[in-house]
Amino acid sequence: MEPNVCTMHSHCIEMSMEVHQVVPPPHKSTLHKLKARLKETFFPDDPLRQFKGQPLKRKLILGAQYVFPILQWGPKYNLKLFKSDLVAGLTIASLAIPQGISYAKLANLPPIVGLYSSFVPPLVYAVLGSSRDLAVGPVSIASLVLGSMLRQEVSPSADPVLFLQLAFTSTLFAGLFQASLGILRLGFIIDFLSKAILIGFMAGAAIIVSLQQLKSLLGITHFTNQMGLIPVMTSVFHRVHEWSWQTILMGICFLVLLLLARHVSIKKPKLFWVSAGAPLVSVILSTLLVFAIKAQNHGISVIGKLQQGINPPSWNMLCFQGTHLGLVMKTGLITGILSLTEGIAVGRTFAALKNYKVDGNKEMMAIGFMNMVGSFTSCYVTTGAFSRSAVNNNAGAKSAVSNVVMSVTVMVTLLFLMPLFQYTPNVVLGAIIVTAVIGLIDLPAACNIWKIDKFDFIVMLTAFLGVLFISVQGGLALAVGLSTFKILFQITRPKTVLLGKIPGTDIYRNLDQYKEAMKIPGFLILSIEAPINFANITYLNERTLRWIEEEEDNIKEQLSLRFLILEMSAVSAIDTSGISLFKELKTMLENKGVELVLVNPLAEVIEKLKRADEANDFIRADNLFLTVGEAVASLSSTMKGQSSTITEESHTIVSHSL
Amino acid sequence: MEPNVCTMHSHCIEMSMEVHQVVPPPHKSTLHKLKARLKETFFPDDPLRQFKGQPLKRKLILGAQYVFPILQWGPKYNLKLFKSDLVAGLTIASLAIPQGISYAKLANLPPIVGLYSSFVPPLVYAVLGSSRDLAVGPVSIASLVLGSMLRQEVSPSADPVLFLQLAFTSTLFAGLFQASLGILRLGFIIDFLSKAILIGFMAGAAIIVSLQQLKSLLGITHFTNQMGLIPVMTSVFHRVHEWSWQTILMGICFLVLLLLARHVSIKKPKLFWVSAGAPLVSVILSTLLVFAIKAQNHGISVIGKLQQGINPPSWNMLCFQGTHLGLVMKTGLITGILSLTEGIAVGRTFAALKNYKVDGNKEMMAIGFMNMVGSFTSCYVTTGAFSRSAVNNNAGAKSAVSNVVMSVTVMVTLLFLMPLFQYTPNVVLGAIIVTAVIGLIDLPAACNIWKIDKFDFIVMLTAFLGVLFISVQGGLALAVGLSTFKILFQITRPKTVLLGKIPGTDIYRNLDQYKEAMKIPGFLILSIEAPINFANITYLNERTLRWIEEEEDNIKEQLSLRFLILEMSAVSAIDTSGISLFKELKTMLENKGVELVLVNPLAEVIEKLKRADEANDFIRADNLFLTVGEAVASLSSTMKGQSSTITEESHTIVSHSL
Repeated sequence: MEPNVCTMHSHCIEMSMEVHQVVPPPHKSTLHKLKARLKETFFPDDPLRQFKGQPLKRKLILGAQYVFPILQWGPKYNLKLFKSDLVAGLTIASLAIPQGISYAKLANLPPIVGLYSSFVPPLVYAVLGSSRDLAVGPVSIASLVLGSMLRQEVSPSADPVLFLQLAFTSTLFAGLFQASLGILRLGFIIDFLSKAILIGFMAGAAIIVSLQQLKSLLGITHFTNQMGLIPVMTSVFHRVHEWSWQTILMGICFLVLLLLARHVSIKKPKLFWVSAGAPLVSVILSTLLVFAIKAQNHGISVIGKLQQGINPPSWNMLCFQGTHLGLVMKTGLITGILSLTEGIAVGRTFAALKNYKVDGNKEMMAIGFMNMVGSFTSCYVTTGAFSRSAVNNNAGAKSAVSNVVMSVTVMVTLLFLMPLFQYTPNVVLGAIIVTAVIGLIDLPAACNIWKIDKFDFIVMLTAFLGVLFISVQGGLALAVGLSTFKILFQITRPKTVLLGKIPGTDIYRNLDQYKEAMKIPGFLILSIEAPINFANITYLNERTLRWIEEEEDNIKEQLSLRFLILEMSAVSAIDTSGISLFKELKTMLENKGVELVLVNPLAEVIEKLKRADEANDFIRADNLFLTVGEAVASLSSTMKGQSSTITEESHTIVSHSL
Repeated sequence: MEPNVCTMHSHCIEMSMEVHQVVPPPHKSTLHKLKARLKETFFPDDPLRQFKGQPLKRKLILGAQYVFPILQWGPKYNLKLFKSDLVAGLTIASLAIPQGISYAKLANLPPIVGLYSSFVPPLVYAVLGSSRDLAVGPVSIASLVLGSMLRQEVSPSADPVLFLQLAFTSTLFAGLFQASLGILRLGFIIDFLSKAILIGFMAGAAIIVSLQQLKSLLGITHFTNQMGLIPVMTSVFHRVHEWSWQTILMGICFLVLLLLARHVSIKKPKLFWVSAGAPLVSVILSTLLVFAIKAQNHGISVIGKLQQGINPPSWNMLCFQGTHLGLVMKTGLITGILSLTEGIAVGRTFAALKNYKVDGNKEMMAIGFMNMVGSFTSCYVTTGAFSRSAVNNNAGAKSAVSNVVMSVTVMVTLLFLMPLFQYTPNVVLGAIIVTAVIGLIDLPAACNIWKIDKFDFIVMLTAFLGVLFISVQGGLALAVGLSTFKILFQITRPKTVLLGKIPGTDIYRNLDQYKEAMKIPGFLILSIEAPINFANITYLNERTLRWIEEEEDNIKEQLSLRFLILEMSAVSAIDTSGISLFKELKTMLENKGVELVLVNPLAEVIEKLKRADEANDFIRADNLFLTVGEAVASLSSTMKGQSSTITEESHTIVSHSL
C-alpha cells in the first residue's frame, strides 16, 4: 500500500464520513411517465417550443413559417443575396443538365426524364425545404437502385412505357414513405444507415455505377442486365469484339479532361467552377465534334432525337394494381431511404458548417412531398445531391433561390435547347457519371474508421463487398443487420469493471485503466456498465461469481471478502429479470458470507428495486450509498467494530482510510 | 443557495482543487483485445479455471469429471443418500407414468412413447447431468408444440407411422440443436426468452393444453385439429350433440379429486405425496371402475390395448429426406429451445435454492445428448420438468439416482404392467393434464411484473395473447421481438440527465431525483446514460442542443452559460459515429461561446477519442477531468480569472464554492 493513503487530514475524513442518502425519484404516475417517454421519443427537439406562450396571430404566422420556410427567409430576401444565388444557380444548372441526362440513362429511363426531374422538384423544395445549400435533382445511387430493381421484372427496352409507369409509381411510394417518416417522426430509422455503412456502401455503389458505364465507354451494344462485379466483368470480356476504338478514344479524352478539372477544383477550391462547368463544356465539345465529323456513322452512339417542352403530367401513368405493386413498393421504400439519407446528410453537413439548424423530420416531409409532386409531373426520385450541393455552396449560394434559378435554366433548356443534344455521344455521359461517382469513394474516411474502430471497419467492408458481390439492397441489409447485432451484443455481454481507490482521494476508478488505483481489503468493488435486463442477467450472474471466486483465490492470506459493492451509476435501466438478478446475487452472496452493497442506483433502478422489495432486503440505509467512497468508509467502520478476525496489516490500512 | 455550500474547510478545498488526470488505458493490441472479448463472450464463467496449474493426471480426472458429473458425486455416494433417492424416485415414478401416457397423447403420439421417454432419457441424464434435482421426462409444453407443429403437414390418425418418424427426427434435431448451443457456448440465446415472456407464454400454453383436453373431458369424438382459443371453442359448441354425460361426470369427479390433492400439497408442502400420488391413484381407481361396470360400452373411451416391452430401437425410423425436412428441423428447433429453457430454468432454480452450481452450457450438452439418444430409442423430446422436479425435491432427492429409480420403475411397468392400462379411460388422462398445467398459470408473478415494470407486463401479455390467438410459435416470436425492440429502443433514445451539486459535498447527482442538488451558474452538467453510437447520435445532438437552449432561456438574467460538462461514466462504448458527435458538438458549442468538457470517459471511449483526435481538440488537460467536482472547481477558477462579466450575485456563489 502506498503511503499517500494516510495523508488525509482529519477534518476531511470527518467530512467524508458524513453519509448521504440515496433517495428514490419523486413519484410520477405511469401516464405521466408514458407521456414524458413519448415526448422524448418523437419530439426530442421540442419543435413546438417556439409556439409556447405566443398570441394566436403570432402562432398562426409561426405555423405557416414552420410549414413553408420560404415565408421565413422570403421577406428578408434582397438583391445582393439574389446576385449570389444567380451565380450559384447558373453554375449548378450547368452541372445539372448533363448529369440529369446521364443519371436518367443510369436508371434506364429516357434522358429527358432526368431534365424533368431537375425542373419541378427544385421549385417544390425552394418553398418547403429549410436547407439553404441543398441542390435538388436526380442522384446517382437512387438512379442506379431504381433502374436495377425495376429491371428485375420489366425490361426497359422491351416495354419502355410500363417501365416508365413503374418508375413514376415507385417515386410516389418513395415520396409517401419519406413524408410519413417525417410526419410520424420516425426519422431515426435512417440513423441505422451509419456513416461506416454509408462509406462502404457508396464506394461499392460507385464501382457498380462505373462498371455500368463500361457499356458507353467501350461502345458495347449487348450488355448484361446484371449489376454485380463478376457478371459485368464477364460480359465486358465476352464482348471484346463489340468494343469500338473510336468510342474508347473519345471516352478516354473526355474522362481525362473531366478528371483533370475535378483535380484542379479539389486542389484550389476557389476554382470550383472548373469542375462545375467541365461536364457542360464536355457535352458541348463532344456534340460539336460528333456533328462535325459525323462520328455517329463511325460507331459512336449518340442520344438521338429528344422530345421538347416542359414536364407533361404523369398522374395517369401511376399504376397500383397488377403483379408489379410489390416490386414498386419495395423499390420506393429502398430508393426512398437511400435518397432521404443522402438529402438529410447533405442538409445537416452544410447546416453545421454555416451554423444554422435543419429540422430532420421537416426535411423528410419536404423531400417526400417533393417526390410525390414529382411523380405527378414525370419526375423520378430526387433528393439533395452531395456533389451538386457542394458546388452550390462553393459558388456562393445564399438561399433556395439558387434552386429556382437552376430550375428556370433547365426549363429554358427543355423548351428551346433540346434539339442541340441530338448528337451528344453517350460515351461523354458515361465519362460524366464516372467522374461524379469517383468522388463517392472516400479512402481517407475508410482509413480513419480502421484507425478508430475495427468493428465499424468490418461493417463498412460488409456493406462494400455486399454491394459488389450480392446486391445493392442485400449489402445494405447485411451491414445494417451486423451493426444492429453489435448493439444487442454489447447489451448481452456488458462490461463489468473492478474499481480501486485513487490514492489521496475518495475517487474509485477502473483498476485496469488507473494503475495507481488500489484495492481495498475485504471489499470487491464492481462497476456494471450497461442496463441490466433479461438478455444479460445470466452473464452478469456468472461473471460476478467469477470475480468473487478470483478475488477469494487471491486474498486467502489477507482479509477475507466481506462486501461486494456494485457501482450502479452506469445501469441506466432495469427490468423484472434484472430485479431477480439482485435477489439471486443476494442469496448466493449470503451463502458465502458476503454482503451486497449498491452504490448510486439511478432513478429508474431504485424505483423498481423499491417496488420489488417489500421485505426491505436491498433498500436499507446500510447497504445503499451515494458514492463508493462513502460506502467503503461507512462499512469499514462497522467492520472494524464487529470483526475481530481482521489481520494486523489490513487493520492498519482500514483505520488509515477512515 | 443554501448556506452549507460555504462550510467547507479551507484544507479540504485545497485538496479538492488538486486535479487528477484522466489516463487512457494501457495499450493493448487488437489481437489481444479480440482474444479478451472472445473469452468474455464464450467463457464468462471460465470453466477451465480449475484445470490451471494442475498435474496432467489430475487434469485428466477433472476432465472426465467435467464430462461425466457422475464421476464427481458417484464415489461419495452412500446408502443413506440412496434411501432418500429411492423414496423420491418412487414418488416421481408414480407421477411420471400417468403423465408420460397423457403427454404422449397430447403430442398425438401412441401412449407408450411417453413411457419409453421416461425410461431411457433419465438414465442418460443421470450420467451427464449436473443438477441433483431435475426429474427428466416428457413435458406438457414441448409435447403440445411438437404435436401441433407436425400436425400441420401430417395427420397422426391418417398416417401414424410417418407422424412417429417425424416426431423422432424432430427429437434428434432438437437434441442436436441443444447440444450445439452448449458446445458453441451460445447458451445466451435462451436468455431471450425472458421470465416475463415465459410467464405469459406458459399461462397461454396451459390454457391451450387444457382446451385440447375438452376432447377427452367431454367425450367428443370429432374434434378440431386447430389449437387456437376460438376454433377450439367453436368446435366444442358445434359438437354439443357428441358430449357424453358419463364421461363428463367421471371427468368432473377425478378433476375435483386431483385439484383437491393439489390444493392439500400446496397448503402443506410436507404432504407433497398427496398430489404426487393422486394421478396414479386416479388411474388405478378409474381403470378398476371402467373394468367393473364395463363403462367402455357406455360412451367412455379408453386407451385400449398397449404394446408390452421396453423401448425398441428407432434409428431406422429417422428420415432426413423428402418434403418434411424443413418442418422437422423447425419443430426440432422450437421444441428444442422450449424444452431447454424449461430444463435450464429448473436446474438453476434448485441449484440456487440448495447452493450448488449448474453450468448452463454443460447442461445444454447433457439435455441435447439425452434427446439424441432418445431419438434412437423411440423417445420424443424430454427435459427436466418443473412440476416433477419440485416433487422430486420435496420428496428428498439427493442426486440423479432418483432418476435412475424412476427409470427402473418405468421399465418394470413397460415389461409387466402394460395390460393393466387397457381399460384406463382417456378422461382421467385429460384430468391429469389439466391439473398439471394449471400450475403453469402464475397470477402472483404476473401481478408482480405489473407492479415493477409496465413494459415487461406488455411483453408478457403479448406472449399470452399471441399463444392464445395466433399460435404457440407466433406468440413467442412476437414477444421476443418486442423485448428485443425495447433494448434497441433504449439505445436509440438514451437518457440524458441534468446533474447538480449536492450541498456540502463534491457529489453531483440527478437534479430531478435529488431535490437538494443545485445547479452551478455558468455550467450545464449533463450525464449521458448509454453507449454512444450510430443509432443515437442524431438524438443526442438534438437533445443536447435543446438542453442548452432551455438553459439559455432560463438564465438570461444570471451568469451566461460557459461550460457544457458531459459526465461520461455511463458511456460504456462508442463507435466512429459517436466520435463524430463530439466533433459536431464542439463546433456547435464554439459558435455559442460554450466550451465542451468531458468527465471520466471510460477506457474504450478515451482510447478511441485519442485515436480520432490528432489535432488534440478534445483530449487536453483543460477539458478532461476525472470527476465533475474537480471539473467545476478547476474551471470556476479560470472563469473567475478571465471573465469580468460575471454578475455580482453569481460571483459570490462561485467564489463560495471555490
